[in-house]
Amino acid sequence: MDDLKSQILTMGQQARQAALTLGNLSTDQKNAILLAMADALVAAEATILEANAKDIAAAKAKGLTQAMTDRLRLDCPRITAIADGIRQVAALEDPVGEILSETTRPNGMRIIKQRVPIGTIGIIYESRPNVTSDAAVLCFKSGNATILRGGKEAIHSNSAIADALDAGGRSAGMPDHAIQLIRVTERATVEHLAQMDQYLDLIIPRGGKGLIETVVSLARMPVIKHYDGICHVYVDAEADLNMAKDIVINSKTNKPSVCNALETVLIHESVAQAFLKDAGQALLDMGVSLRGDNATQAILPNTEAATEEDWVTEYLDLILAVKVVPDLDAAMNHINTHSSRHTDCIVTKNDASAKRFLNEIDSAAVFWNLSTRFSDGEEFGFGAEIGISTDKLHARGPMALPELTSYKYKLYGDGQIK
Amino acid sequence: MDDLKSQILTMGQQARQAALTLGNLSTDQKNAILLAMADALVAAEATILEANAKDIAAAKAKGLTQAMTDRLRLDCPRITAIADGIRQVAALEDPVGEILSETTRPNGMRIIKQRVPIGTIGIIYESRPNVTSDAAVLCFKSGNATILRGGKEAIHSNSAIADALDAGGRSAGMPDHAIQLIRVTERATVEHLAQMDQYLDLIIPRGGKGLIETVVSLARMPVIKHYDGICHVYVDAEADLNMAKDIVINSKTNKPSVCNALETVLIHESVAQAFLKDAGQALLDMGVSLRGDNATQAILPNTEAATEEDWVTEYLDLILAVKVVPDLDAAMNHINTHSSRHTDCIVTKNDASAKRFLNEIDSAAVFWNLSTRFSDGEEFGFGAEIGISTDKLHARGPMALPELTSYKYKLYGDGQIK
Repeated sequence: MDDLKSQILTMGQQARQAALTLGNLSTDQKNAILLAMADALVAAEATILEANAKDIAAAKAKGLTQAMTDRLRLDCPRITAIADGIRQVAALEDPVGEILSETTRPNGMRIIKQRVPIGTIGIIYESRPNVTSDAAVLCFKSGNATILRGGKEAIHSNSAIADALDAGGRSAGMPDHAIQLIRVTERATVEHLAQMDQYLDLIIPRGGKGLIETVVSLARMPVIKHYDGICHVYVDAEADLNMAKDIVINSKTNKPSVCNALETVLIHESVAQAFLKDAGQALLDMGVSLRGDNATQAILPNTEAATEEDWVTEYLDLILAVKVVPDLDAAMNHINTHSSRHTDCIVTKNDASAKRFLNEIDSAAVFWNLSTRFSDGEEFGFGAEIGISTDKLHARGPMALPELTSYKYKLYGDGQIK
Repeated sequence: MDDLKSQILTMGQQARQAALTLGNLSTDQKNAILLAMADALVAAEATILEANAKDIAAAKAKGLTQAMTDRLRLDCPRITAIADGIRQVAALEDPVGEILSETTRPNGMRIIKQRVPIGTIGIIYESRPNVTSDAAVLCFKSGNATILRGGKEAIHSNSAIADALDAGGRSAGMPDHAIQLIRVTERATVEHLAQMDQYLDLIIPRGGKGLIETVVSLARMPVIKHYDGICHVYVDAEADLNMAKDIVINSKTNKPSVCNALETVLIHESVAQAFLKDAGQALLDMGVSLRGDNATQAILPNTEAATEEDWVTEYLDLILAVKVVPDLDAAMNHINTHSSRHTDCIVTKNDASAKRFLNEIDSAAVFWNLSTRFSDGEEFGFGAEIGISTDKLHARGPMALPELTSYKYKLYGDGQIK
């Protein structure tokens, strides 16, 4: 076995061992450790910034884009924000230990279904160094051991952050190997992690489609995916057009770079003229490029022609695909065919149409008369989230602390046999 | 693209389409369809037995073992039992539509988390033809479309059963393609299914370790695994030894061929002599072969020596591995290292030891003073189960109808924007 593989396997074994202890820490113990981590992170600010400067210099030398370099960059306010994030996680309710159900069977045996940590979680992420802390502390609070594998370009920053978390955590009694960072940047580490199903219960890739695809094709253990958000708003024949305009503009322009931003608007043909003349024009005036079907182009001649590709593109930019549809069924059919099953919205005053839309659209979040930007763990009241799952197994939609747990059945008997 | 692959992709597309309709059938509609399937199965008895006779003849011609041929065999009582199984599933509570939580956020938006079907499920199984019906109807009741891929040796029986289910179901309004059987027996179909993550939300392999390993290494979508049951009973220093004897004998001998049967007993050294002289001898007298460590052999000289392999073997037979341990920690360490995380039991009168065991053993089901044979969906009160998951994601332990569902978030607003 090669050296790197055996090194990763050792980390896995250590994570598995740590998980057995972590699962039985009390909430108070975990919170004390989290607060110590936050303090240690702030105390290590100079060291972290120094490490980050190395990454930034390397990025510049390698000619990374401005946007990529910006994603890497840390400064005092960002480090403070990471530490505050840890303190917020300490303040969240601990899901571990919750009794999910309790029954007594006719033979007298008592069955308790109780939330427990998943165990060991691998996080594979790209350039943002804050993920090192954000992901690790969510996993820690929910009693899981973590193995982190960040992007090569952030290796110095990630190492400095992981060192601070480790030092702070240990000073407050954190078990060994609760949070481990892979400090080798070879690509093969991803494969070794993904194959290690004897030690790793779950992998969460955080990053672009390429990264997720790679992990999915390699992984032997469950992967929870946070694919694109190709989100839709359908403006129904019976929509309040002013409300629809506000929702479409807000969903598209409030923060175009995130997964809950709007990418395609569908408009019932009976209101297309009125809606596009007003809201469509307003979007154009705000600098949004429209990619429309023929009907849209007939109403707004400034619109580029949409291609098939546009219906499945997550622009993450001030671009919006626009299609006019004959009825609700056509809208739903378009969405169920092209949506990434993240978040889709209907704007209508008709209860029956809304009900059908909410029932028949097969997406994690289905909205009635609301901006898609509310599809977010914080907005749902879950506190910090580790991502928004576009999977249907285990966790769907915003994924917070309870979604980082599993359960076990505890059975109490007095000698029953079969 | 080759023909077979495109054929499987078409089935996937049809399943996805069927799922959209299935998810919105009422419970009454689904139950009427299930009852019609049961009737159709009984009505097709002669056809099914004729098809089965072909499989049996082929099995004999190929020289399959008696045990394998027996697993293939159908007769009138077995067909009646399959039909009764369908009627029982019709009688089970429908999990779809259940409201899991409901909140209103400060901005007035209402969030309902509601159970919905997973969507499309692939079932890959081996020789028992009853799985064709058992798995399909559980998936159907929970609103999912199924693609079945059974063993080559049962192809005629599986086809006849699937035809009956389809004819019966359609006569009562079942949507097209709700239950599809792959009738091509080439091995490549498994790979095509496992790669088709755009159409298949989940794969459940039902069969031996080899099959599961193959599916896990090929699959791009989630796989719920039902691996071995390497189940343990730990007889504590403070066990009631008569109770421990009953539990060990029952767990091992009641039905040795199933996954919740006992495979290894661990005994605290202070009671090893007394327990083994009595219960160990009783097991030997019942024809159970013991594989013991040195301490066990010293007490029961008729015992074969256990090797490392014995601690990780699922015998499914009248063989029991036996180990004497110095304390509870050693027992727990052995279990957490060697168990398949299925079901493990402690026999003790000591509350503190039991509590530690239930908390610290990382298995789907942890038992206190009970036969491991109770680790079963039926015994838990869940009704029919599709298997016992040794995974920790999505479903752990007995997997019944609710575990065949996902959820979605429905959000109700009145124009909120961010």
